[in-house]
Amino acid sequence: MKVYVIGIGLIGGSMVLDIKGRYPEAIIFGIDNNDKHVQEAIDLGVVDQEGKMEDLAKADFVIVSVPVDVAMIVLPKVLDLVGEKTIVFEVGSTKKPICEAVANHPKRRNFIATHPIAGTEFSGPSAAIRGLFQGKTNIICEVEKTAFKLQEKALNLFSSIGMRIRYMDPVSHDKHIAYVSHLSHISSFMLGKTVMNKEKDEQDIFDMAGSGFESTVRLAKSSPAMWTPIFKQNKEHVLETLEEYIANLSRFRDLLKEEDYNAIFEEMESTNKIKEILNGLTIKK
Amino acid sequence: MKVYVIGIGLIGGSMVLDIKGRYPEAIIFGIDNNDKHVQEAIDLGVVDQEGKMEDLAKADFVIVSVPVDVAMIVLPKVLDLVGEKTIVFEVGSTKKPICEAVANHPKRRNFIATHPIAGTEFSGPSAAIRGLFQGKTNIICEVEKTAFKLQEKALNLFSSIGMRIRYMDPVSHDKHIAYVSHLSHISSFMLGKTVMNKEKDEQDIFDMAGSGFESTVRLAKSSPAMWTPIFKQNKEHVLETLEEYIANLSRFRDLLKEEDYNAIFEEMESTNKIKEILNGLTIKK
Repeated sequence: MKVYVIGIGLIGGSMVLDIKGRYPEAIIFGIDNNDKHVQEAIDLGVVDQEGKMEDLAKADFVIVSVPVDVAMIVLPKVLDLVGEKTIVFEVGSTKKPICEAVANHPKRRNFIATHPIAGTEFSGPSAAIRGLFQGKTNIICEVEKTAFKLQEKALNLFSSIGMRIRYMDPVSHDKHIAYVSHLSHISSFMLGKTVMNKEKDEQDIFDMAGSGFESTVRLAKSSPAMWTPIFKQNKEHVLETLEEYIANLSRFRDLLKEEDYNAIFEEMESTNKIKEILNGLTIKK
Repeated sequence: MKVYVIGIGLIGGSMVLDIKGRYPEAIIFGIDNNDKHVQEAIDLGVVDQEGKMEDLAKADFVIVSVPVDVAMIVLPKVLDLVGEKTIVFEVGSTKKPICEAVANHPKRRNFIATHPIAGTEFSGPSAAIRGLFQGKTNIICEVEKTAFKLQEKALNLFSSIGMRIRYMDPVSHDKHIAYVSHLSHISSFMLGKTVMNKEKDEQDIFDMAGSGFESTVRLAKSSPAMWTPIFKQNKEHVLETLEEYIANLSRFRDLLKEEDYNAIFEEMESTNKIKEILNGLTIKK
């Protein structure tokens, strides 16, 4: 079994680590536009050897795990090169632009659009970890546009590394994910910015910040190279979530200005039901 | 050694668990306006027995760990009742109003104002956990207003349960903590609200939310009864942080509207240095 991973970072790297764990006979080929990443991935045992684009025809699986703007360019090229039995999947956080980019490709049926909901705030080959996908959700879009046998091949692979599958159309995916993922990143980045701008003396943050702050700004460590194109591709949905978030914060500010503490209490109490939702998340893991 | 804890929740409960661990001979008395909490705390082994306010004269330590609005009322009453050798401390998230409430109390020197920077999003006796304060910071305000011998007694106790001590004036405390704690809670509550308002079908959140969302909304599980009076008491500083946060989010929204992706990249990249600050936090633990 030959598995090619294009872009050897957190998602692609973690995925091939688990594939290799499940299928020890698999040969993992790494391709990355950063030569250092390829060598680092080999040294870390994330991939077995460097791969070449011109060999993709022999691949069983090609995982395209690059920033979503790069995926738009790389994916059609990859499809140009793959063989009849190759299944290509891409793992980015936007699905409509990606699906559109390959909609009319003659080898569209060799492609499956996925979004594994898993990750950390780290990036690069050293961010790859085992077991990242265990119990996590993989959202698959436009499954009907993938050749039946290749659907099966991909789904078996995802199941083998512990993922739950959910099917969704690309527009719904992009809309919902703006709320539960993209907005969280902006809220976290801007929280980090607000605090850092104010607290010029970092020692004050260091000494006074607790686990609550750490938790809310964790995503502000994320890669700008990865996130800028996500916000670009999902601009309309992200703007919608951001407007609503700003409106909710402004309302909270106004209630505080007006000293309407009953309303402030109710704002928080009604949001407390997020507990049950998060308990659901915890059970899922 | 007699230790009284008034308000047996996350902070007070965890503190007496560690004190008992360190001083097994200590007798822990619990006082709570919720009778069920007292019984629950006894059943859980968090306190040894129910305490009575009229016995506070015999106390070595009195920990007042109630919402900050309740502390304003309870604290002067407690000071009225304590003995010469009793040290009283209060652990809330605002310090200026608390210090003012006891500024002219005849037994001011029996009081030490503290803010242990530790916690979780849970509350009540069952939220009490061992080791919560290990390696955490305890901010002490107006230490010079506490009797010297009682300072020493309190500081030894804090050290014995693993806390680092930092001294600060109450106004600086309230200003800085607004940034690194109070704002995080509002950002998290409003994020939770925004997503829940939109995603009427909770299953969508359940399936699509990952660890990033979970991390950023964790604080939205916090107790409104605890947080409403904190926002009330620290209103001016909280409003300042909230205005800046909303301004930063609005700027990000405008950059996205204008499709200035270079600026968006830079916004995130410059905030990435939060990594080093958070690494500092991690080392601290």
